[in-house]
Amino acid sequence: MSTPEQQRIDQVVAQAAATARQWAQSSMGTRAALLDGLAEGLENHQAALVSLADEETHLGPARLNGEVARTAFQLRGFAAQARAGVPLACVEDAAIDGAPPKGRPALTRVSEPLGPVAMFSASNFPFAFSVLGGDTASALAAGCPVVVKAHSGHPRLSRAVHEIAQGVIAAQGLPLGLLGLVEGASRAAGVHLVEHPAIAAVAFTGSYQGGSALWRAANERARPIPFFGELGSINPLVALPGILQREGAALATLLAGSITQGCGQFCTSPGVIILLEHPASDRFIEQLACALQPLTTHAMLTEAMRKGFEHGLHNLEQASAARPLLEPHAGGEGPAPRLFEIDALAFINDSALREEVFGPVAVVIKACDVAQANAVLQAIGGTLTATLWGFEQADEPARSLYRTARTIAGRVLFRGVPTGVAVTHAQQHGGPWPASTQPHTTSVGYAALQRFLRPVALQDAPAWALQPYQERSQ
Amino acid sequence: MSTPEQQRIDQVVAQAAATARQWAQSSMGTRAALLDGLAEGLENHQAALVSLADEETHLGPARLNGEVARTAFQLRGFAAQARAGVPLACVEDAAIDGAPPKGRPALTRVSEPLGPVAMFSASNFPFAFSVLGGDTASALAAGCPVVVKAHSGHPRLSRAVHEIAQGVIAAQGLPLGLLGLVEGASRAAGVHLVEHPAIAAVAFTGSYQGGSALWRAANERARPIPFFGELGSINPLVALPGILQREGAALATLLAGSITQGCGQFCTSPGVIILLEHPASDRFIEQLACALQPLTTHAMLTEAMRKGFEHGLHNLEQASAARPLLEPHAGGEGPAPRLFEIDALAFINDSALREEVFGPVAVVIKACDVAQANAVLQAIGGTLTATLWGFEQADEPARSLYRTARTIAGRVLFRGVPTGVAVTHAQQHGGPWPASTQPHTTSVGYAALQRFLRPVALQDAPAWALQPYQERSQ
Repeated sequence: MSTPEQQRIDQVVAQAAATARQWAQSSMGTRAALLDGLAEGLENHQAALVSLADEETHLGPARLNGEVARTAFQLRGFAAQARAGVPLACVEDAAIDGAPPKGRPALTRVSEPLGPVAMFSASNFPFAFSVLGGDTASALAAGCPVVVKAHSGHPRLSRAVHEIAQGVIAAQGLPLGLLGLVEGASRAAGVHLVEHPAIAAVAFTGSYQGGSALWRAANERARPIPFFGELGSINPLVALPGILQREGAALATLLAGSITQGCGQFCTSPGVIILLEHPASDRFIEQLACALQPLTTHAMLTEAMRKGFEHGLHNLEQASAARPLLEPHAGGEGPAPRLFEIDALAFINDSALREEVFGPVAVVIKACDVAQANAVLQAIGGTLTATLWGFEQADEPARSLYRTARTIAGRVLFRGVPTGVAVTHAQQHGGPWPASTQPHTTSVGYAALQRFLRPVALQDAPAWALQPYQERSQ
Repeated sequence: MSTPEQQRIDQVVAQAAATARQWAQSSMGTRAALLDGLAEGLENHQAALVSLADEETHLGPARLNGEVARTAFQLRGFAAQARAGVPLACVEDAAIDGAPPKGRPALTRVSEPLGPVAMFSASNFPFAFSVLGGDTASALAAGCPVVVKAHSGHPRLSRAVHEIAQGVIAAQGLPLGLLGLVEGASRAAGVHLVEHPAIAAVAFTGSYQGGSALWRAANERARPIPFFGELGSINPLVALPGILQREGAALATLLAGSITQGCGQFCTSPGVIILLEHPASDRFIEQLACALQPLTTHAMLTEAMRKGFEHGLHNLEQASAARPLLEPHAGGEGPAPRLFEIDALAFINDSALREEVFGPVAVVIKACDVAQANAVLQAIGGTLTATLWGFEQADEPARSLYRTARTIAGRVLFRGVPTGVAVTHAQQHGGPWPASTQPHTTSVGYAALQRFLRPVALQDAPAWALQPYQERSQ
């Protein structure tokens, strides 16, 4: 017997599945018009939505207005991808007469939308990684209907955005099943959605624990499906002594802002600061502590996240290899920023010390030499970003640490801080496990659309089957 | 305590890992020269290798010489990909001043080789899916060292090809660890290889049982890694009455040849023939049975495969929904070809009837109408290929069955038979589970190289880091 919650999920998935074939064959103009319409729908209700979001998330109107702008920009960006015919891109090999291996039939490599996508909203971006966020925009552009699992951290906002979206879909004469919404905070509800036979792929951004449970459910289906999950990232930053000597104070201020931005609740929050033994490194630690000390934060997104943060801090406070560098103060609505120093060898050898602590905290590690700094990066193993400060000159330490950073990260920055992820063609938001369950793919930027397409080679196809690809951008 | 077999694996993986950084940074010219050299090495020893392969596999000199030609062609094809700079392809977004979402840093999306690849050889292509097959060629071109797990069906050939490859690698002054070879027929040996922390990805072609066990091992690692596995495919073929009326006899001969080719031991062997209720379909079944009846096959590749084939036949013979259409004859070294008819509804409802039987056998299904034929395809769910005969006109039955074929297959053919997979740019050899564990990727054709690369976005990178991409093809 299924529960009412499961019945509701089954119903929404069935509605999505009923639209899948039609949407897979929809014109690029239809997709673009829908995505543009959704962007406009958000903007038309921006003031009310931001007010609702602020009540539920405490993120503040400035940040939330910026996030609406980003989300609308992203919807229009994927509309432009559809209009440019990206989902209809193809590779053609003309037939060659004769025996193989040189002789061959005519082959045209095209893309097929995967089908209904289950999309799990994140708590920390109530617009950009939620109902009309990047996953939804890229899946719709690719030709896939979406079933959104609303995040329990902003349920009223999720319903309001979904209602606006339904209005846009209806006004354009499209089936409402294109964008479904299901609720239910339980793990079981999420697993039920992932296990539904009509769900063809999953997009997830959230915690390691929740995400890996859903990933396992996707793999344990009779027919496993692609699971695009972002499960966590500790985002190392390596700063060489030279730049710290020249710009230490300014960099400390910049970094302190990044560690505490959004109360540290960013996937790309810099969690591990790696320095080399040097007086400039010691001075930078003091500068960073000074810069962090007075900062206050807003309340955390949910009670569960506050508890998770406290649990992580408790582990650091109990660890003999970790030494607190800041006395937490009592000001601010949210938790005070924290900074610890961890012994390099202990960090390398003890995976518990490398766990992500989601919130306004970072750890500093002083490596005795470049080899040990490389070992620290290698121990991290998988991360969304790695930031390299002071790497302007291509000397051997810079080359060596850069090589290692590339092997563990999806984005390597040479300037600035990792928080803030531009929506562009070249963006890569994903990396080796646990940063992504599918490190070949990105969840931000226009390449995100490719997650929801699968290549199909058409062999000796008649003209009628190839026609959509010849009329590519209309 | 590790066993001697495990110690040997650890040693070979360590040698591969020691070359990973150097090979990831190797020039495109170096990679191309190695791949060309390996092709030449195979050709220089072709007669001796074919003779050894025939002893171990019974595939016959004609087929094996063709397979060497294909393997050398493929190595040279990936050399050309390297020479064209494909692994250095990049996407550049120039910086835009101002606030996000429009303002952005400079981003360059490049590719990073994954690292040491564990490659599991297949039994049925002792050259093209073995030591120097497509997985090895594409991984080396991508910049990844390879550890080959030799197939126990052709151990002497595997050693001989590996020795030739080691000679080529040494002659070019490259590290021998670039291409390792491990043996050991046990499941435990394979799992040990997949679980090795220095292995970064797995390529597998083989049985569902073996492949899914290794896939689970890859997922159960502390840090799961990409697993590119081809686990099975039953390759449906739909023939509409019109074409059967016109060309039934010739098509029956063509299809019988495909079913029995290589004793039916092809991933792409057509296993399910779907027909619509029509006198032409009934006549075609007779024509196909007549064409199959006199054909003989060579011995199967291994004793285990012969037992697997007999087990699958036994299941079909016991199934009340299956009816034999051929009396097996006693001629030939290998098993006689077999043909069964299965009731459409039973096939749709009973997954046991849809299991791949590797060998010279096919089942015929007569669907009462197009909707039921679609349901048969949907029940198959994931397959490397789907073949559509008589789809020249874009009428509604053709459009509908074509749409369904696209949702389940990696390659859709409109002419000819699915056995024989051209190595081209547009080729796609992979499809929804179980045809591939990563249906976004292909194991044949030049896109196979992309499996072993992962995108990395370089943000505000200095000139020295971007230099290799600006000098792309040298």
